Amino acid sequence: MYPIYLDYAATTPVDPEVIKAMIPYFTTDFGNASSIHSYGRRARQAVDEARKIVAEFLGCESSEVIFTSGGTESDNLAIRGLIASYENTNNTTKVLKYESKKQNTKPHIITTQIEHHAVLNTVKNLEKSGMIEATYLKPNSDGIVSVRDIESAIKPNTVLVSVMYVNNEIGTVQPIREIGKLIEKENKSRVQESKSPKEKSSGLPDFRTRDSHIYFHTDAVQAAEYFDMNVQTLHVDLLTFTAHKIYGPKGIGVLYIKKGTPIKPEQTGGEHEYRKRAGTENVPGIVGIAKAVEIVRKSKSPKVQESESPDSSAGKNQSQNDILRLRNKLIEGILKTVKGSRLNGIRELRSPGNVNISVKNAEGEAILLNLDLQGIAASSGSACTSGALEPSHVLLAIGVPAEIAHGSIRFTLGRHTTETEINRVLEVFPGIVEKVRSISPFK
Amino acid sequence: MYPIYLDYAATTPVDPEVIKAMIPYFTTDFGNASSIHSYGRRARQAVDEARKIVAEFLGCESSEVIFTSGGTESDNLAIRGLIASYENTNNTTKVLKYESKKQNTKPHIITTQIEHHAVLNTVKNLEKSGMIEATYLKPNSDGIVSVRDIESAIKPNTVLVSVMYVNNEIGTVQPIREIGKLIEKENKSRVQESKSPKEKSSGLPDFRTRDSHIYFHTDAVQAAEYFDMNVQTLHVDLLTFTAHKIYGPKGIGVLYIKKGTPIKPEQTGGEHEYRKRAGTENVPGIVGIAKAVEIVRKSKSPKVQESESPDSSAGKNQSQNDILRLRNKLIEGILKTVKGSRLNGIRELRSPGNVNISVKNAEGEAILLNLDLQGIAASSGSACTSGALEPSHVLLAIGVPAEIAHGSIRFTLGRHTTETEINRVLEVFPGIVEKVRSISPFK
Repeated sequence: MYPIYLDYAATTPVDPEVIKAMIPYFTTDFGNASSIHSYGRRARQAVDEARKIVAEFLGCESSEVIFTSGGTESDNLAIRGLIASYENTNNTTKVLKYESKKQNTKPHIITTQIEHHAVLNTVKNLEKSGMIEATYLKPNSDGIVSVRDIESAIKPNTVLVSVMYVNNEIGTVQPIREIGKLIEKENKSRVQESKSPKEKSSGLPDFRTRDSHIYFHTDAVQAAEYFDMNVQTLHVDLLTFTAHKIYGPKGIGVLYIKKGTPIKPEQTGGEHEYRKRAGTENVPGIVGIAKAVEIVRKSKSPKVQESESPDSSAGKNQSQNDILRLRNKLIEGILKTVKGSRLNGIRELRSPGNVNISVKNAEGEAILLNLDLQGIAASSGSACTSGALEPSHVLLAIGVPAEIAHGSIRFTLGRHTTETEINRVLEVFPGIVEKVRSISPFK
Repeated sequence: MYPIYLDYAATTPVDPEVIKAMIPYFTTDFGNASSIHSYGRRARQAVDEARKIVAEFLGCESSEVIFTSGGTESDNLAIRGLIASYENTNNTTKVLKYESKKQNTKPHIITTQIEHHAVLNTVKNLEKSGMIEATYLKPNSDGIVSVRDIESAIKPNTVLVSVMYVNNEIGTVQPIREIGKLIEKENKSRVQESKSPKEKSSGLPDFRTRDSHIYFHTDAVQAAEYFDMNVQTLHVDLLTFTAHKIYGPKGIGVLYIKKGTPIKPEQTGGEHEYRKRAGTENVPGIVGIAKAVEIVRKSKSPKVQESESPDSSAGKNQSQNDILRLRNKLIEGILKTVKGSRLNGIRELRSPGNVNISVKNAEGEAILLNLDLQGIAASSGSACTSGALEPSHVLLAIGVPAEIAHGSIRFTLGRHTTETEINRVLEVFPGIVEKVRSISPFK
């Protein structure tokens, strides 16, 4: 049986060019990048070059690129590292002092209900331990977070907004650029207010002083393959992405940290990564993520802009256009042939590779197992929560009733997806749904 | 010029067998181990098998093996994770409650002045932020930490002892087994004391209750290649090692966490690694560290015991014996031909691959650069601090005067070291020292 992989959002096969680029750093050029001899220098040079490539991809400086072990670590470093910087710090000129004991005010984080668990559980964890206050914004039923909701949620003690770029389950694209601009405006007005003598004595908490600043983080793990990743145009201070979603290796990720953003290292030891992340550099991984980025850059020139619908602009890129066409074929085919099916998340502001379908009166897990028996790999949500019996937090947040959310399937297309594969899925899917429904307790 | 690599303690080339084992998990079996379809199941199976191999290596259960991104992360998770578990915990039956606010008592950590920075800076960092008290024990001039000193340093609020197994700079082997037994004895006496009604009302702090326990961590990064790694015979609760020092890939490490040891995750997100470490499993890395471990296990059977001198037992293992013989040849050759040279750290309780030499009136960095010009890769200390202008904290701790510590060179031999290479070093080293001395400001 010919296997069909439609779970590219969970992970991707490593591009042969990426493997080829990595191999020498396992073998001949295996040195520790911190060693000063020739073996070390060759490794250091490879790390420097890789950092430059990633910096160009993000439109930032090399010194703003921190290599981590992946998306989860990057998200944790962004959020925990920022919050930790408000404690016990002597850096009063640059960093807002967190004076919760005096004021009974905690730093406030705004995030959304549809974040990846690396963000969501980290924010919840900090909240539970009493270190922060948090607001979890609900997206609309299309799966889009409203810029106005973010504006309304901002409080004097807000220090961080973390909104994902592209949702991993339903593929919806968030208005990162607009949120970035809003926060920039808010920061400017804070500076002005702190300059006004009237405000100075108004008894506002310290968070609203000159040093008060809202930082903006986006988890762009699912965006890197298709969307604009320029941190200047996105107006972000912190951005996460990882290699294994863009045909690079697992175990290597990036956190972009805009110069001046206070991040306390989570992992201490040697003086690696500009003292932001200790640990021997994963040289092959770093070379691998850079090569993966190079391949992405080539494939998405001219870029799909995050504020445009991929449907309108992706035509410029053949490969991405193919994916989009096949995705649309799959969506339309299923909606047409499977009664009681619906697409979760808006179609127009959506990752080109994402199909998330709910079918009434059927168990998603049972559909998945039957697809698997036919050699088709799909997912019921994110890989990180597969096996969980609860319905997807993302689907619940956009208002899908629990019993329908249970019958949800995510297909994610990628670079190797073919028309034959999509035809095959369309051929077997209605029958599988029918079979599952016939044994469903919901029927 | 034939390059000679004598910096195996900084990092090692990846064994071709390891690369061969990893490759399929980049390509055909690239699935996310958390996915439930066939691609995911193959990845999960690989992770499970790898965990079993590592567990056998350590003499523990699979569920006690946590894969991390390397030694630094493992050390951080062990130390920070344990300390974090004392805060805001509801798990009162298993976990010692940290009631610093009531008692003005903080958890106390005992460590040594010669730890790797991943441990030392982490403990210092926690101390600086006011979360713990710490004692940094000085080793004797041989570079060995005294079990009695540890015994004397134990206080009622001691919760963690962290002592490295083999020092990365001078290769000295610490009495881990004896320290482990001491701590076990201390823990037993604490249980008895808490059972005695007299003690119950003696006003001793909560740390000395039934739940009070001292945990023992060892950073065994430099030990894994040569020494006994059985956590039962070592009597440790937490043990760190990493792949890239044993001919495996960079970016993957292990933390052994004995069942019941309270560790709060540092990295939150999905439910990976028994909820101790979130993040997509680095499947190729995990497969790689397991293959590296398999190769080590084969090569060190029968094992060199940590309490025995490698000189006496290593003869049983041809490869290790070769390294030891070459190491001794290098030590003796240098001490004989270079006036004013000394071996740092005791020779008898020392890693088979380690040579750390100080030469009077010469700058170590200048010697290194001259060695490098001859194609010989050595180090002035650990790779993680190379480039630092301060003399080694390890050499200062064992009482080497700063001006002599400055003239120190570490050669570390490994599996590929040949007699020809050692002869070549012995041939050029005296001339290099002479040349460097002739231009030294110390002369």
